[in-house]
Amino acid sequence: MKFVCQKATIFKEISLALDFTSQRNSLSIVSNVLLETKENLLVIKATDQKVGFHSQIPVETLEEGSTTVFCDKFLGILRSLPETDILFEEKNEKLYIEPVAQKMDFQLRTIGSDKFPDLEEHSNVPFFTISQKDFLDMVNQTIFAISEDETRYYMSGVYLEYNTSSLIMVATDGRRLSYIERKIEETIPRFPSVIIPAKFLTLIRKMATGEGTFRLGVTENTIFASFGGQFIYSALINGKFPNYRRVIPESQSTSVITSVADILEAVKRVSLFVETKAKKIFLDIDQNGITVSSEENDLGIARETITADYSGEPCRISLNYGYIMSPLRVMEGEKTRISFTDTGKALTLSPEPERDYFHIIMPMQPTQTGK
Amino acid sequence: MKFVCQKATIFKEISLALDFTSQRNSLSIVSNVLLETKENLLVIKATDQKVGFHSQIPVETLEEGSTTVFCDKFLGILRSLPETDILFEEKNEKLYIEPVAQKMDFQLRTIGSDKFPDLEEHSNVPFFTISQKDFLDMVNQTIFAISEDETRYYMSGVYLEYNTSSLIMVATDGRRLSYIERKIEETIPRFPSVIIPAKFLTLIRKMATGEGTFRLGVTENTIFASFGGQFIYSALINGKFPNYRRVIPESQSTSVITSVADILEAVKRVSLFVETKAKKIFLDIDQNGITVSSEENDLGIARETITADYSGEPCRISLNYGYIMSPLRVMEGEKTRISFTDTGKALTLSPEPERDYFHIIMPMQPTQTGK
Repeated sequence: MKFVCQKATIFKEISLALDFTSQRNSLSIVSNVLLETKENLLVIKATDQKVGFHSQIPVETLEEGSTTVFCDKFLGILRSLPETDILFEEKNEKLYIEPVAQKMDFQLRTIGSDKFPDLEEHSNVPFFTISQKDFLDMVNQTIFAISEDETRYYMSGVYLEYNTSSLIMVATDGRRLSYIERKIEETIPRFPSVIIPAKFLTLIRKMATGEGTFRLGVTENTIFASFGGQFIYSALINGKFPNYRRVIPESQSTSVITSVADILEAVKRVSLFVETKAKKIFLDIDQNGITVSSEENDLGIARETITADYSGEPCRISLNYGYIMSPLRVMEGEKTRISFTDTGKALTLSPEPERDYFHIIMPMQPTQTGK
Repeated sequence: MKFVCQKATIFKEISLALDFTSQRNSLSIVSNVLLETKENLLVIKATDQKVGFHSQIPVETLEEGSTTVFCDKFLGILRSLPETDILFEEKNEKLYIEPVAQKMDFQLRTIGSDKFPDLEEHSNVPFFTISQKDFLDMVNQTIFAISEDETRYYMSGVYLEYNTSSLIMVATDGRRLSYIERKIEETIPRFPSVIIPAKFLTLIRKMATGEGTFRLGVTENTIFASFGGQFIYSALINGKFPNYRRVIPESQSTSVITSVADILEAVKRVSLFVETKAKKIFLDIDQNGITVSSEENDLGIARETITADYSGEPCRISLNYGYIMSPLRVMEGEKTRISFTDTGKALTLSPEPERDYFHIIMPMQPTQTGK
């Protein structure tokens, strides 16, 4: 294998590929990236056997062939090279990297491409087209609610559901739930509901520009995405997602409306005084507004009142400040509505006026000290 | 104690004070910052009992008094507050923090100021004035050569020596040494040679702007610095610094001159291939220039040739790439000279043409594999 390529072109592609390798060490084949010249194209593949990456870039091929090199180190070397054309040549189980017209010679050990695992085949995947913005909006509204509890692996991803002219995404860790249903302009073929690992959504966020569309495809065990000539995929989470519809309150009798920025800033400040794992804060709601406060501890105590529209009975809600901060950080518009029926039961946080998403939070017991 | 102060004014001062506290936990007095109102001034003190900070800012004092609060948390709260005037009041063993005209109330537990350790007295220190730029230049040329070996505590700081119309700074870890002698415009009173802890020099770098002058004072066990109304100090390292003059070669018979940028870039690239702790690279010097290379290992091998002026016999020098990279990173001008007599003995790295500093590096044995 022998080809010439601009440094910037191959660097960009290899830096994407790196996220799909296992990065464990330089001797493991799944830490390597596969390079294969076919006519005047360089095919680049990477996989850690859960996620996979397949791309191709134009190069000047001098000799067809294929090999694999340690991706992390290969990227480091490319990064350090000047912005010129670079000659790559595989011989004697080494990849020679020689910037054209420079007295440099880097020889990186290779592992034969015959040892490289096969990637999932994407040629028969029923791809459909979807707006990058719509998909990223859905991910942004849900991904933070994923469970970090490894024993509940079936909640460690975002649930994606097909609903004729819309897509639904849901994430939950059992104490809070985030939901979005986005109307989709494009026609989408029916696909079974799936649980997408957080890592894959993070990779999509990194590769997407937010402009235009990309293609998505779901098969029984795998989700695929395609951006131009790049194909990526991930194994799906194999498990049963909780029946989230049972958690969504049908109606709630009381609600309070306040400024997103005001309550977020108040919660941030008060949370500085909370040092327990339970992250408990109080919201005292009455005609004067919402008073956010902490429980007194060794540090001291904090209390802040913000204005709000409320006409119900004075009441106190205890909750984990992280559960209210994450949705507020991605809430669009100026106002938020907090709805509830009973301060001991699920409360709903939504933008005001309504949009296509909401967040459900289970409150804590006011008597529970959380220590 | 009760006073009103602008948020930005007190925030800036407390953020400086934080570096001088021990930060261990909220219940230790040396994690606290001392606040004391005297007429319309707020005196701020912090110390971890090795370094100390003393400053004062104008405030509107409503009631004189003093107290101490956990510095780290106090800073976090100040950071989170809006940019307004803030009322601070000590009562019931708490510091009440109330931004004026806002419905916020933060109460931070206090520890009585009588438990706060005394700071080193600076009123009788023989301060002298010195250019910030000169002092920072000296620190930048030496601080990286400090020993990280805790058992050689007497090399864990920078040696500062008085020399009538100049100051000398030296740092060494036993395998390399950095030296600078700066002519000083100002008149400086004679003081004994001292070893300054790296932490204190880092704090000076943080507080200095690089413009104008500051004041420095050395007593038997302590070094003081003063920026306007701020006084800081540190205990000195109590030990005997090695006789560095013995290490400096009187003359060297051979030298090679090359571009600072070229050799630095080549060493950086080649170092990507070096995976052993010994960090060994080779410099092969001959009429064609300098070839920087790595020892072949599991990753592969790297070799890069740069142009250089050299008329001696071809030779090979083995050295730790870190020892050549650090001085090159702070070298001024375009060219560097590497001087040596014997490739197995000390080599000197200096700017070309000469300036007031140089760096000595002990080479490694070429036969030593460093694995």
